[in-house]
Amino acid sequence: MRLSKSFVKTLREAPKDELARNGALLSRAGYIHKEMAGVYDYLPLGLRVIENIKKIIREELNALGCEEVLMSSLQNPEPWEKTGRFSDQEVDIWFKTELSSGGALGLAPTHEEPMVNMLKSYISSYKDLPLYVYQFQTKFRNELRAKSGLMRGREFLMKDLYSFHASEEDLDKFYAEVEKAYARIFEKLGLGNDTYETFASGGIFAKYSHEYQTVLPVGEDTIYYNSDHSVVLNKEVYNDEVLEDLGVKGAEFAETTAAEVGNIFKLKFKYSEPLGLKFSSENNEMKTVYMGCYGIGVSRVMGVIAEKFADDKGLVWPEAVAPFKYYLVGIGENGMHEAEKWYKEHEDLVLFDDRDVRPGEKFADAELLGIPYRVVISDKTLAEESAEVTDRRTGEPRLIKLTEI
Amino acid sequence: MRLSKSFVKTLREAPKDELARNGALLSRAGYIHKEMAGVYDYLPLGLRVIENIKKIIREELNALGCEEVLMSSLQNPEPWEKTGRFSDQEVDIWFKTELSSGGALGLAPTHEEPMVNMLKSYISSYKDLPLYVYQFQTKFRNELRAKSGLMRGREFLMKDLYSFHASEEDLDKFYAEVEKAYARIFEKLGLGNDTYETFASGGIFAKYSHEYQTVLPVGEDTIYYNSDHSVVLNKEVYNDEVLEDLGVKGAEFAETTAAEVGNIFKLKFKYSEPLGLKFSSENNEMKTVYMGCYGIGVSRVMGVIAEKFADDKGLVWPEAVAPFKYYLVGIGENGMHEAEKWYKEHEDLVLFDDRDVRPGEKFADAELLGIPYRVVISDKTLAEESAEVTDRRTGEPRLIKLTEI
Repeated sequence: MRLSKSFVKTLREAPKDELARNGALLSRAGYIHKEMAGVYDYLPLGLRVIENIKKIIREELNALGCEEVLMSSLQNPEPWEKTGRFSDQEVDIWFKTELSSGGALGLAPTHEEPMVNMLKSYISSYKDLPLYVYQFQTKFRNELRAKSGLMRGREFLMKDLYSFHASEEDLDKFYAEVEKAYARIFEKLGLGNDTYETFASGGIFAKYSHEYQTVLPVGEDTIYYNSDHSVVLNKEVYNDEVLEDLGVKGAEFAETTAAEVGNIFKLKFKYSEPLGLKFSSENNEMKTVYMGCYGIGVSRVMGVIAEKFADDKGLVWPEAVAPFKYYLVGIGENGMHEAEKWYKEHEDLVLFDDRDVRPGEKFADAELLGIPYRVVISDKTLAEESAEVTDRRTGEPRLIKLTEI
Repeated sequence: MRLSKSFVKTLREAPKDELARNGALLSRAGYIHKEMAGVYDYLPLGLRVIENIKKIIREELNALGCEEVLMSSLQNPEPWEKTGRFSDQEVDIWFKTELSSGGALGLAPTHEEPMVNMLKSYISSYKDLPLYVYQFQTKFRNELRAKSGLMRGREFLMKDLYSFHASEEDLDKFYAEVEKAYARIFEKLGLGNDTYETFASGGIFAKYSHEYQTVLPVGEDTIYYNSDHSVVLNKEVYNDEVLEDLGVKGAEFAETTAAEVGNIFKLKFKYSEPLGLKFSSENNEMKTVYMGCYGIGVSRVMGVIAEKFADDKGLVWPEAVAPFKYYLVGIGENGMHEAEKWYKEHEDLVLFDDRDVRPGEKFADAELLGIPYRVVISDKTLAEESAEVTDRRTGEPRLIKLTEI
């Protein structure tokens, strides 16, 4: 992508009401535009980051045999009334609206009910199970406060996966596979070192659920971890009873703040029972389907990555989610000429700063934008048939042969 | 994709209230699931069709230098109040909702206002122009009636492109480029032969706008065309004055029904003026930005294609939008074995019906699903090292060497 051809430029100021560092930096760097608190537009570079995150998740889920769909935002109250969740007392973050032909509608904050309802057309026998269905979908949650940039949205992008099983053993088996896939996903997203599978409350049907918590000073959650991080607990389950149950009573636990980037949950019959999702077993008995659900906050992950790795010069993207791998600058006539040539050979990987501005401005924007490697081609580097390649994380420049970058 | 591993199967019945052929066939074939009138979920095969349509549009727009973004659905009333369009009297298809912290919001039925508003951060000088920004985004329209399947949605996917220019000449030039790109897009979508650029009402700022109308018996619009289709008019502008203006008064016009699949519009100052989108010219004068907008109804295109090409056996997809190119069936032990082998070599292109059901059922599903080519491998075809390849459109089978398909 050529910066000279893009409408986006870096801005001197973030929106005045943008208190979160991720929101402020992503706005200034031109990745997002704030519509209102908790509601953002994704500009070309921001959309590329989102698509990179989706790609990493999609590859892992497809490898497990999950199938991708796209469900609606507008929600008929009917299935939600069967589970009691259309009530504003029960779920206090609904956006509701009205059909002009009459009748209330909701904007989906999650999709258990319509997913179960839809699958009633497709599940009738044990032969139809197990099955795994996911989507990347815009969720709406009417949060009273939304001051954390992309980390708490009123409109946000989520990956939600639902699994359907004939037995609890089969649910347990798949749940364990998702745990492994999630570890790989957060590793690939660059969050592996600081993201912990964390015990959280399980609700009525399961002892525990699991959250994926990324250690972060401004995270909204509090977690407790033991010395080797083998047991990590959300504050809500950090008590003697649970510590004893997990066999770690007496161990020392430290406290930290963290941001929830995903969660997985053995729902069992929670939604399949009230909505009547049943199958006939091998013995021709009608049985209720076991369910699990598995979320990752896609836009929240973008916010957490921005927040976590940024330094005083700007954003720092891990390579796998960065919108481009290289930020290219040519200096002087020969430098520009060779940069043009190199750009054309690597177009998909390169953000080419071909604007008619001085190198200092380009270097500052390269840092604000957080592209992993800055590549500078000038007379000096060309004397060695090389470019100066600077790692955004370390700031260290290296002279590398143009043919070897 | 292996049918045995997919949750989707063909259904005997469409939803009872599904009156439109496209909706009924797409539901029965498992491409979509109806949530309510005008609101659908896209199941795995349906999502592939949507993605194929997006890919065709994206390639053409990117080639024009357009940049992709993703804007929000939730709308702050402010910019819409400046253009008068937040009023239900002015725009009667709003879905509105309420922030829990107070204040009305709307669900975007289109995006001129937020787009112009956002670009005020990025346009200040003539040097920033022209620029072209588009998105694939879910629109919400509170239609009183929605009985045409995917062809009239309350929640639907649209491509909307907006262009910004320093002069009317530059707008005219880009508009002409979009006209050519749209011709290529509808050609690639398989609708080229029956889709006409159609004169329609231009509103206050332009004499005419243009719609892209696909001839269709159940289309909701009426269009008039002359003998060589060089002049096509929407009923709303089919009158003596317009015919004279276009130099075709006295020519014979025939009437037909059609479905609008796209429209393009020279907005000029319609939104940039009330929202104050200005730039400083080369002479340092502050001038208002010229605008154009260009829509294509992505999910409607899917409905129109389904509706238009279907026959009494089911759907018939043009190759470029079909979810898969081949529907593979192996008959007998050798047939299944060779089919497995061939599948593994062409996985991305093949929907493999590896279910344990009789061939007749597979053949019927192949026709309902409308995959362009059915490939059958059996002892009989293997005797010639071949497969029987049947064209879904013509029904004609041909024996083709396995290595040559």
